[in-house]
Amino acid sequence: MRDVGEDAVIRALLRVLGRAPGGTTGPGDDCAVVPLPDSPWEWHLTSDPVVEGIHFLADTPPRAIGHKAVGRVLSDLAAMGSEPQWLLIDVTAPPDYPVRALQDIYRGASRLAKRCGATIMGGDVGKAEQLSLHVFGIGQAPVNQGILRRGARAGDFIFVSGRLGGSLLGRHLKFIPRVAEGQWLRTCGGVTAMMDISDGLATDLPRLLALNGLGAELEAASIPIHPDARRMEDTHSDLYHALTDGEDFELLFTVSPRHREQLESDWKATFKLPCRCIGRITGQAQQFLIQYPDGRQEQWTAAGFQHFVSGEPEREHFK
Amino acid sequence: MRDVGEDAVIRALLRVLGRAPGGTTGPGDDCAVVPLPDSPWEWHLTSDPVVEGIHFLADTPPRAIGHKAVGRVLSDLAAMGSEPQWLLIDVTAPPDYPVRALQDIYRGASRLAKRCGATIMGGDVGKAEQLSLHVFGIGQAPVNQGILRRGARAGDFIFVSGRLGGSLLGRHLKFIPRVAEGQWLRTCGGVTAMMDISDGLATDLPRLLALNGLGAELEAASIPIHPDARRMEDTHSDLYHALTDGEDFELLFTVSPRHREQLESDWKATFKLPCRCIGRITGQAQQFLIQYPDGRQEQWTAAGFQHFVSGEPEREHFK
Repeated sequence: MRDVGEDAVIRALLRVLGRAPGGTTGPGDDCAVVPLPDSPWEWHLTSDPVVEGIHFLADTPPRAIGHKAVGRVLSDLAAMGSEPQWLLIDVTAPPDYPVRALQDIYRGASRLAKRCGATIMGGDVGKAEQLSLHVFGIGQAPVNQGILRRGARAGDFIFVSGRLGGSLLGRHLKFIPRVAEGQWLRTCGGVTAMMDISDGLATDLPRLLALNGLGAELEAASIPIHPDARRMEDTHSDLYHALTDGEDFELLFTVSPRHREQLESDWKATFKLPCRCIGRITGQAQQFLIQYPDGRQEQWTAAGFQHFVSGEPEREHFK
Repeated sequence: MRDVGEDAVIRALLRVLGRAPGGTTGPGDDCAVVPLPDSPWEWHLTSDPVVEGIHFLADTPPRAIGHKAVGRVLSDLAAMGSEPQWLLIDVTAPPDYPVRALQDIYRGASRLAKRCGATIMGGDVGKAEQLSLHVFGIGQAPVNQGILRRGARAGDFIFVSGRLGGSLLGRHLKFIPRVAEGQWLRTCGGVTAMMDISDGLATDLPRLLALNGLGAELEAASIPIHPDARRMEDTHSDLYHALTDGEDFELLFTVSPRHREQLESDWKATFKLPCRCIGRITGQAQQFLIQYPDGRQEQWTAAGFQHFVSGEPEREHFK
């Protein structure tokens, strides 16, 4: 897998699966979308692995592990504007892993699930060398109302919720998935596409745009930088951290021009969380321009963006 | 986990989760059962991990790994009489795992899914030290028609499909989940409880009976022994293998006395697969009696049965 990069792995697997059946949205979005028989609702399905040494460390508190594993799945559901319903949790752990720690994982998972309106309905426990959790989530929305990654148009404005960068200092273990905000965005009108930022804006925005055959022009000065990005002790700029750190679990969405103003003022009246317009969609497929305050512009292709991130993203959705 | 046994681990985790909401069946069955909004259908949710070194070995062909991972989940659905609908597959693998082998895993998974009427809608790929698959499955049945483990009554006859034992010689990698048979049993009338045999009859039957507060009397001569059980080269009897080997993925179900005869003759007219009555449910909670052809009887408690198996089952459902 290492040699070809994980985007290519996903494409190789999708070739095996073939096309999703009519009336559904298959791999390629935050969630799969399936119709319910004889019902005006659709369901959104998603799954996410959380593995020791990659998503958390040996000394991460078990409650935080459970919180993060459930949070990642709820963030996928939030990105569809979905109402979370049901969760299953598979845990694999070494045979000497303490039962009390397993219970604490479940406490962390259960607490966040309840807060977001979801119920853990079971799962499975097994042995493995490494501690890992696989959470499976189901949410719902009225038929055809779930917001997909596909749907953005040239001229749409690009928004992000919250602030980006530096999540490794702690937020990646205690973020609150934007479930309420996602549902609000589904119903407020004018939101044309949405996803959550798990691998960093610089990796995730090109994914959204590749699906739509479009490009983007971002304003560097508008990108909301989290104070944690400034606290990262290395040689990279704050902006670099905001673009590439990942695990922000904020919402990235596009808004049609005639809805922009109303949406911004309604959001302010509803949420304390900031919501920033960071740029605009262009018709130039997979061209990304960043405009700096000093007049300088930088341009990347999607491939360049991905290289810019880390050479290879740590992991890859293919839902 | 090792010290307390996995049944106790499950109970410890269930205490954290609390009770499932009304109208649903939570942990404790082959699948969780949830209602669909505004629909005459219910959905069955299940998940299963398949881990290298436990469920398959480093030299297991990748197609067989995919087949087994999907087969386990479809067997859970079969045990509810469910119609399989949707699957997600999470794969975690070492970074140097070949993409071609991953594709072959998906080919094996996809082939069995199609055969059983299910569609793989995506999933996720991540890195881990050990190759593992986590499959999530959804099936459906008309509301309140899914067959649960709970429901058996004293006097009911106990049946198993197929033949048991020796699956390690190869069947554990290529079994066909009893999806058609499960659906047939859901609609034929008289089936009061059902589960699939994953950890061996001697472990799984007491689980079903513990939920019902009942016991069982089995006839040793009626237990259908697979030819593979006789081919196992060790000092144990064929019957011991049939009772304890596990990974049979056959259906274990109970039938009310007035339906027994009709069910047996209708089954014979419908399936080539054998279906055997192996004993009867008794009112003596968690007492298990095995009657041998020479008149000898042996009695175990559920705890004794579990000890008899292996001291500790390899893994444990808690759906």
